[in-house]
Amino acid sequence: MSSHKLQAPKGTRDWYPNEMSVRRHIEAAWRSASVDSGFDEIEGPTFEHLELYTIKSGEGIVNELFSFTRAGGDDTYALRPEFTPTLARMVVARAAQLPMPIKWFCMPAMFRAERPQRGRLREFQQWNVDLIGVAGAEADAEVIATGILALERLGLRPTDVQVRISHRDAVANILRRLGVAAESLHAAFELLDRRDKLDAAEFAKRAAALGLDEGARAGFERVARTTLPIATDIAELARNVDVPVEDVEPLAALRDRLSALGLADWCRWDLGIVRGLAYYTGMVFEFHEASGAERAIAGGGRYDTLVELFGGPKLPACGFGMGDVVLSLVLADRGLLKDAEAGAFLPRPDVFLLSNGAEAAERGVAGLEHSLRRAGFHVRRSYKQTRNIGKLLGDANKVRARFALIVDDKFADGVVTLKDLGAGTQADVWREDLDGLLRRAR
Amino acid sequence: MSSHKLQAPKGTRDWYPNEMSVRRHIEAAWRSASVDSGFDEIEGPTFEHLELYTIKSGEGIVNELFSFTRAGGDDTYALRPEFTPTLARMVVARAAQLPMPIKWFCMPAMFRAERPQRGRLREFQQWNVDLIGVAGAEADAEVIATGILALERLGLRPTDVQVRISHRDAVANILRRLGVAAESLHAAFELLDRRDKLDAAEFAKRAAALGLDEGARAGFERVARTTLPIATDIAELARNVDVPVEDVEPLAALRDRLSALGLADWCRWDLGIVRGLAYYTGMVFEFHEASGAERAIAGGGRYDTLVELFGGPKLPACGFGMGDVVLSLVLADRGLLKDAEAGAFLPRPDVFLLSNGAEAAERGVAGLEHSLRRAGFHVRRSYKQTRNIGKLLGDANKVRARFALIVDDKFADGVVTLKDLGAGTQADVWREDLDGLLRRAR
Repeated sequence: MSSHKLQAPKGTRDWYPNEMSVRRHIEAAWRSASVDSGFDEIEGPTFEHLELYTIKSGEGIVNELFSFTRAGGDDTYALRPEFTPTLARMVVARAAQLPMPIKWFCMPAMFRAERPQRGRLREFQQWNVDLIGVAGAEADAEVIATGILALERLGLRPTDVQVRISHRDAVANILRRLGVAAESLHAAFELLDRRDKLDAAEFAKRAAALGLDEGARAGFERVARTTLPIATDIAELARNVDVPVEDVEPLAALRDRLSALGLADWCRWDLGIVRGLAYYTGMVFEFHEASGAERAIAGGGRYDTLVELFGGPKLPACGFGMGDVVLSLVLADRGLLKDAEAGAFLPRPDVFLLSNGAEAAERGVAGLEHSLRRAGFHVRRSYKQTRNIGKLLGDANKVRARFALIVDDKFADGVVTLKDLGAGTQADVWREDLDGLLRRAR
Repeated sequence: MSSHKLQAPKGTRDWYPNEMSVRRHIEAAWRSASVDSGFDEIEGPTFEHLELYTIKSGEGIVNELFSFTRAGGDDTYALRPEFTPTLARMVVARAAQLPMPIKWFCMPAMFRAERPQRGRLREFQQWNVDLIGVAGAEADAEVIATGILALERLGLRPTDVQVRISHRDAVANILRRLGVAAESLHAAFELLDRRDKLDAAEFAKRAAALGLDEGARAGFERVARTTLPIATDIAELARNVDVPVEDVEPLAALRDRLSALGLADWCRWDLGIVRGLAYYTGMVFEFHEASGAERAIAGGGRYDTLVELFGGPKLPACGFGMGDVVLSLVLADRGLLKDAEAGAFLPRPDVFLLSNGAEAAERGVAGLEHSLRRAGFHVRRSYKQTRNIGKLLGDANKVRARFALIVDDKFADGVVTLKDLGAGTQADVWREDLDGLLRRAR
C-alpha cells in the first residue's frame, strides 16, 4: 500500500486534540450566536440523492461533487456540497405542520471535489443560518446580526471583518438605467460577478453583447467598485452611481435596521457583490476580512423563490453559510487562536489525582477517581510509575488542572490534601467535604 | 424527478429541531463522560482511502462500504464505516511526539452500505473511546467505566443495561481444555461468535471439524451460555465451565477493579461474547439492553496489536464504539426521551420580548433584542402582527421562556416590565438594571 494512503485524503483534515479544540471553540460561537438569536438546530444526511443538487444548480454542479452508488443499488448519491437543498427538502416535507417563521441553523461537514487551495478544502465545516417565512429588512438584518454576533464572540471587530452588502433590486434598477434590457439582466449579473476573472478585452466584449456602449461600460465598472459606509445617505449613494434616488430605495430599510441594531460599523454597501447563485432575490452579502485578504468568510442573502423551486409553498427566506476554513485563517492572522497551542481551548480538569504510593492511598485513588467523575468533575491522573510528588504536580499544571488532590497515608482516616494550583495554597480536607468544596470553587 | 429523491436517502435521517435536541442530549452525555474521564476529543475525515479499511478487515469489507472516486482522480475513497482505522492512522503519524497514554474520544457520523433494519441504519453517529499506551485491567475498567458513566447521565440503570464481558485468554484456555488445537483457535472463536446464526446440524459439523467430540461440543455450548455476576468468585466461575481456576485467572483483576469502582452491578461475565473482529487480544465486552432485547448498544475490548498492524510501534490499547441508533431505542423504551416531544431538550429562552405596539415600544424592541443577545441572553420574540398580550404570552410559554419582557409606552422613560413566567409575578424595571436581573435569575 502506498504511503499516501496512510494519510488523510487530500483536502481533508485530521483533528488532533488541539486542532479539535479550535474547531469546538468556533462551533461554540456559532452555536451560542444561533441559540441566543432564537434559531433551532437541525441536521440532515451527509449525502443526498444526486438529483437534489441539480434542481437548484443545474447539471454543471455534478463535476464538483463526490458522487457514488451503493453496490447493487439504483440510486446515485452525492456528498453534500452545501446545505440549502437539504433545508428546502426538509421545509417542503413538513411545510403544513411547521410553525412559522422557521428559524433554523446547522453546522455540518460539507464536501467539494475541487482542487484544494488556500481557504478551500474538500471537506470543511459550514455554519448555516436560515430564517424562513418572514419578508423584509428586519429579517435580513436579523440574519446578518446573527453572523456578526458569532464573530464578536470569537474576538473579531469591525476593523477585522466587514459585511459587504448589496441588493439585487437596486443593482437591477441601476443596470437598466445603463441600458441593459430586461432579458439580459441575468447575464449582466453574471458579468458583474465574474468581472475580476475576465481580462479587459473579454469584459468589453461581453459588456458590448449586453448592449452597453463605452459610457455605459464605465458606469458598469463604477457600480462594481461602489463601496460606501452603510450609514451613507441614500441620496448620496444614488449620486455615486448616477441614478435617481428611487433606484436605490430598497437599501434604505436595511440601512435603518442595521443602524438601529448598532451594527453600522460592521457593514458596508458593496454593489459589486452578486453571489453567483442565480436564486437570490433581494439583499445579498458576503463577510470579508476587512482589507480584502482571503476568500469570503461567509455569503448569503434573500432567496424568496427557493422553497417553491423544491415543490413547496411560496415562502420568503433569507440565510447564509459560513465555512470554518477561511474564518480560521482570519482568526489565526489576528492572533485569536494562539492560546490553542498551549491547550487553552481544551476543557480544564477540576482535579488532578496523585498518590504517594502507600497501599491505602493506591486503593483509595481508584475509587476516588471514579466517584468524583460520577459526581460530575473532570478528573485526571498520571499513569506514570513515579510517586515523585514534584513531578506529578508538574503533570497537573501541564493539563491546567484547578486542583491537585494528594492521597497518602491519611486516606485511611478519611483525609486528603487539596492543593489549589492557581493560588498555590493547600489544606487537608475530609473526603466527604470534597465534592462540596470543589463545586463551590468552580 | 421521482418523489423518493425528494426524501432523505434510505437509511439516513432528517433531524428536525426536536430530533436534533435528542441527538445533542445523547452527545452531551457522551462528551461529558469522556471529558470528566480525562479523554481528549479528536476527529478525522468523513472518508478515507478505501485501502485503509482493508488493512484490518480484509477485502470482505468492501461491499459494506460506500466507495467512490473523484472525477479525474486516481484514488478510491470510502465513507468511514468505523473509526478505528482512522484512529490507528492518526496514532501512527505522530507516535513519536504524542504524550502517553493517548486518551481520545470522538463522536463522528459513520456509514454502512447495508440493508437498513431496526437498530441499524446506513448513517449513524458513533461515540468512540480509546485508551492507548496502558496495558492491564485498570485501563480496561476505566474504558468500561466511561461508557457506563454516559449511560448513567442519560438516566439508565443496571436494571436497564448490562455490560457483558469476556476475555479471549480465558476463553482460549477453556477451548484448549475442550480439545481445540492451537491452530484451530481462531476458527473456534468464529464458531462461538456465529453459534446463534447456525442451525444445530451445521454447528455440529463445524464443531467436529475443530476436533470436538460430542462431550466437548456440550462443553462448548456450556461456555457459550455462561453468564454470571461479575462478583462471582473465580473458583466458582472455573467450576461452571469445568476448568482449573488458573484458566480463568485473567478475569480476576478486571473483576477486582470494576468492583472497586462500584460498577459490579452493571457488569456480567458472558463467555459467549467474542466480538467478531479478529484483532481483539484480551478483554472483550458488549453493552446490551438488560433483557437481551435489541442489538448491542456498544462493543469493544483490548486490541494490543492494532497500532502495529498500521505500521506503528507496539502499543497496548483498549476502546469501544457506541452507536446512537440502538441506544435511542433503549432510551425511548425506558421513557427517557418522552419530554423531547414537548421541547424539553431544546435550549430554554431567557427572555421572550413583546411590545404593545406603541411607536416608541416598536423602536425599542429591535435594539433591546439585539443588545440582550449581545450580552449573552437567549432572546425570542413573536413575528406575528398581533399585539394581543395574552396571545403573545402564550407564545412565550410555548417556547418555555423564563421571562417575558413587555415593552410599552414606559420605554420612553427607560422602563420595561419583566414577567417571571414560572412564578407568574411581574415588576417594572429600569432598562439598565435588566442584564443584571436576568443574569442573577439564571
